[in-house]
Amino acid sequence: MDKILRINMGADGGPKAEAEPVGSYAGMGGRALTSAIVSKEVPPTCHPLSEDNKLVIAPGLLSGSAAAMSGRISVGCKSPLTGGIKEANSGGQPSQMIGRLGYAAIVLEGKPKDDTLYRIYINKDKVEIKADKSLKMLGNYAVAEKMKAEYGDKVGCISIGPAGEMKMAAASVAFTDMEFRPTRHAGRGGVGAVMGSKGVKVIVVDDAGCSVRSPKDADRFKEANKAFVAGLRKHAVTGQGLPTYGTNVLTNVINEAGAYPTKNFMWGRFDGCSKISGETQAETENTRGGEGSATHGCHRGCVIRCSGTYYDKDGHYLTKQPEYETVWAHGGNCGIDDLDTIAMLDRLDDDYGLDTIEMGATIGVAMEAGIAKFGDAQAAISLVKEVGKGSPLGRILGNGAAVTGRVFGVERVPVVKGQSMPAYDPRGVQGIGVTYATTTQGADHTAGYAVTANILGVGGSVNPLKPEGQIELSRNLQIATAAIDSTGMCLFIAFAILDQPDTFQALLDLLGSFNGQKLTGDDVVGLGKSILTMERDFNRRAGFTKEMDRLPDYFKKEKLPPHDVTFMVKDSDLDQVFNW
Amino acid sequence: MDKILRINMGADGGPKAEAEPVGSYAGMGGRALTSAIVSKEVPPTCHPLSEDNKLVIAPGLLSGSAAAMSGRISVGCKSPLTGGIKEANSGGQPSQMIGRLGYAAIVLEGKPKDDTLYRIYINKDKVEIKADKSLKMLGNYAVAEKMKAEYGDKVGCISIGPAGEMKMAAASVAFTDMEFRPTRHAGRGGVGAVMGSKGVKVIVVDDAGCSVRSPKDADRFKEANKAFVAGLRKHAVTGQGLPTYGTNVLTNVINEAGAYPTKNFMWGRFDGCSKISGETQAETENTRGGEGSATHGCHRGCVIRCSGTYYDKDGHYLTKQPEYETVWAHGGNCGIDDLDTIAMLDRLDDDYGLDTIEMGATIGVAMEAGIAKFGDAQAAISLVKEVGKGSPLGRILGNGAAVTGRVFGVERVPVVKGQSMPAYDPRGVQGIGVTYATTTQGADHTAGYAVTANILGVGGSVNPLKPEGQIELSRNLQIATAAIDSTGMCLFIAFAILDQPDTFQALLDLLGSFNGQKLTGDDVVGLGKSILTMERDFNRRAGFTKEMDRLPDYFKKEKLPPHDVTFMVKDSDLDQVFNW
Repeated sequence: MDKILRINMGADGGPKAEAEPVGSYAGMGGRALTSAIVSKEVPPTCHPLSEDNKLVIAPGLLSGSAAAMSGRISVGCKSPLTGGIKEANSGGQPSQMIGRLGYAAIVLEGKPKDDTLYRIYINKDKVEIKADKSLKMLGNYAVAEKMKAEYGDKVGCISIGPAGEMKMAAASVAFTDMEFRPTRHAGRGGVGAVMGSKGVKVIVVDDAGCSVRSPKDADRFKEANKAFVAGLRKHAVTGQGLPTYGTNVLTNVINEAGAYPTKNFMWGRFDGCSKISGETQAETENTRGGEGSATHGCHRGCVIRCSGTYYDKDGHYLTKQPEYETVWAHGGNCGIDDLDTIAMLDRLDDDYGLDTIEMGATIGVAMEAGIAKFGDAQAAISLVKEVGKGSPLGRILGNGAAVTGRVFGVERVPVVKGQSMPAYDPRGVQGIGVTYATTTQGADHTAGYAVTANILGVGGSVNPLKPEGQIELSRNLQIATAAIDSTGMCLFIAFAILDQPDTFQALLDLLGSFNGQKLTGDDVVGLGKSILTMERDFNRRAGFTKEMDRLPDYFKKEKLPPHDVTFMVKDSDLDQVFNW
Repeated sequence: MDKILRINMGADGGPKAEAEPVGSYAGMGGRALTSAIVSKEVPPTCHPLSEDNKLVIAPGLLSGSAAAMSGRISVGCKSPLTGGIKEANSGGQPSQMIGRLGYAAIVLEGKPKDDTLYRIYINKDKVEIKADKSLKMLGNYAVAEKMKAEYGDKVGCISIGPAGEMKMAAASVAFTDMEFRPTRHAGRGGVGAVMGSKGVKVIVVDDAGCSVRSPKDADRFKEANKAFVAGLRKHAVTGQGLPTYGTNVLTNVINEAGAYPTKNFMWGRFDGCSKISGETQAETENTRGGEGSATHGCHRGCVIRCSGTYYDKDGHYLTKQPEYETVWAHGGNCGIDDLDTIAMLDRLDDDYGLDTIEMGATIGVAMEAGIAKFGDAQAAISLVKEVGKGSPLGRILGNGAAVTGRVFGVERVPVVKGQSMPAYDPRGVQGIGVTYATTTQGADHTAGYAVTANILGVGGSVNPLKPEGQIELSRNLQIATAAIDSTGMCLFIAFAILDQPDTFQALLDLLGSFNGQKLTGDDVVGLGKSILTMERDFNRRAGFTKEMDRLPDYFKKEKLPPHDVTFMVKDSDLDQVFNW
């Protein structure tokens, strides 16, 4: 990974690819690299769909190596949804492949003069860029099928659906999984719209003939990896909860805690919760046969394997096992308690190339506006189909909750920096509220997952309903997360490394031995801080202020049942999150 | 004008009106008062459609007096379009009436718990607030007719159309004119949406039994008024140009200067210009008979009388004489060169309650997105009718150019702070570009009309195509404008007072004699500065930064034919506008 592949889609005479040495970006991976390139090379006030924006696709530091869990990938740009810097993270196969191809990042730059749509094929010998009209407005599933037919099933695809082509701010970038299905998404912030603005429909990566990236200190690396895997298997969350029920194990947990945002964040508990919980989902999947629940990793090298496959009533593949946040977004948040509906919506989102969180939150807002009734499953499916069609209504919804709220004059719109809040009400999990408010990314649970100490008793314990201790909690998690997002590691390793010092040490050894260095916890903290500083600097130059590090006013005024609590962390305390 | 009438639309038990002494707001009128109340009483980060926002309707300092030109009115709030402070200015009859009723301002506060729609009647004895379902979704014309039938034709109406009820960010507040037609609008910034959020459809003001406000120093006042009127009649613009052709006299002038934004700001000259110029418009109006061109003031007391009446081909009243900015917005900016189409669009905008500038700019963006072809007059009419219907497409368009650009993924969107640029390309009139960029209001020509010295040779001469001198020009005009907008005076008096020191002195004497003070030019400058400071402070607290005091990047990159010029004023210079 000592090269950066730059593809100028606006070059005179047509798109042009050039590999260049990684240069001053050496030693960076994943989010550290996407944020460094965006921060340094993208004018902060540019239009996100303009030629000046760049789409940076970067595997993690350990991607392409034999390290467990190292196949996550970062997609960065100036976000069309938030107007700030964006890193959206995904699983799937391409990360390991790009790492093995030797690229620290693929950077899409410029934009075509017309609306020609391109596909890009990258292997160890060449980069091929071809105009391909036949791909226009295809769903991600059809694109993957076409690529598989042409290049075989050993390659990986990075693609956009119709939403990305229509430059919708909820558009995702899809990554194919181990079954060559486009089920893994860099979902948040409209990264798919930026790929669409570059005129790129799909990037096929083919690592045939490339070898696994080898560590500098092979013995130490092997040892560390073993200890690391053992640590993950030992922890209750990564060793049992997640493998058994997937992320949807959280539905009952969060609902029980009274922090499950129901019907556009009106209540903290959902009546229909038990019908869509991870337990019910696992049972449904297991009953219907097939691969069942929780047998999948999202990428080769995963040992947690929190994913699965969802089959319809007739036993046909419908979609991957929907994640907790998806089940919430299309479920409780819209008053819908039917798993088949939720799975269908997940499938549609994946196919059109849409962020499931943004879409669920958006439909919740549309329901509050009276466009459909809460609980109306068929209406929700119809609304998402409108997005796929690109009708005016679909265009509104495909641009997310903030735009939808604006267009329909809705006051209660659960967004920060224009991005929808995920599946944890910030009044019921005040620590995640601090993260929503202050992260550089717009409301994002993964940026500093305070649900750990607030609800799960992981990494300590902080009362979720009180403001005390939330700033420190969110700060430390945001720092750690930024660092983890740079390694290519799945964020779920955090459960084990927060609780088990020896597993954290194993991670340090993994990273250190790979590069022949000795790393300490301070190095990780330093890395995390440097990334956050870079990102905040970009946002500042884009015009962001502390007034944007706030939840919408109504979270401070409306009490959330059943605990009847408001968000109580003070503005002045929020301003201390990055004051380390 | 020693009272403020506060109407709490969200009071327990139903809306409640209460008059209170003007108190610490004493001595303020128009924009000074709306901005002071908004700045002091509205939480800057609140949702513009929430109960925390306030709609402030304030006549000017001299409104209700016998001073010529004093019937302008200010409408202020936190803007749903820009998210910042807003003052939208209008003519019409209500300003003089509210002044005579003794109210310095009417303030709508709170919001109803449900979607009940109210009408309010105010006379010297009472304030009556009634729920009235029959008004739902009526156009402004129908509302005016209904009110006239009920209250006679001596009252004035302040109303919203369907756009305001639907809380669209391009919604205006309409004021009836001397013929009881709702043709005068506080157009910009979505003030109509805020009135809609308060559940108020119409405010009927009735000054029967009230007398003209009398000056403290009657003789000096009479003398000053005489000199002031003589000055207006003497100046070429206010004495001849505006009365003869109306504001549309500018079409040929701005086109000739190469600064006429054509087809969504792609060119600086429009082929069809002569077909829609003020000269052609006057001829058309005069040929069709009726009241013809340029015989109207927008309010009683106007001596410039730059308005007129537009009749259709069959001699029936269609709309008031469309203003230059309207003719541009629906004309050249959309490639449309047909006056009857433009007049029809003006009528629809007035009836639905929409800002003509925002709507024209929005349709230009929609045309760039391919929703309709540039020049397609029928399509433009259909699009505006969609807005009236509130279809999804109409909801998009009714929320203005920024939202429309966002929803359809358009990069070239001519807005600042979310508000559309008016009829002067900032590359061809660089002084107005400075105003667009830096005013607290979002792109707004009236906030500092640098067209004066840049193009018209009024108040000096500054090369419109060079950056030199534009900062000072815009700064001084912004200061003067803020002050004038507080007096109730029509901004067009600026032409005469900029060029004729004795007319400026007459204005000072008018203001001074009314209150028994002696005013100097420094007082006016001080007033203007204090208003701008207050407004900028509100915006700062709402999260605005200098990065928002910028034109979209493409104005700095794309050359505007025929002069092939970009906007060349440096960012660092823009930051000096308020550094006085």
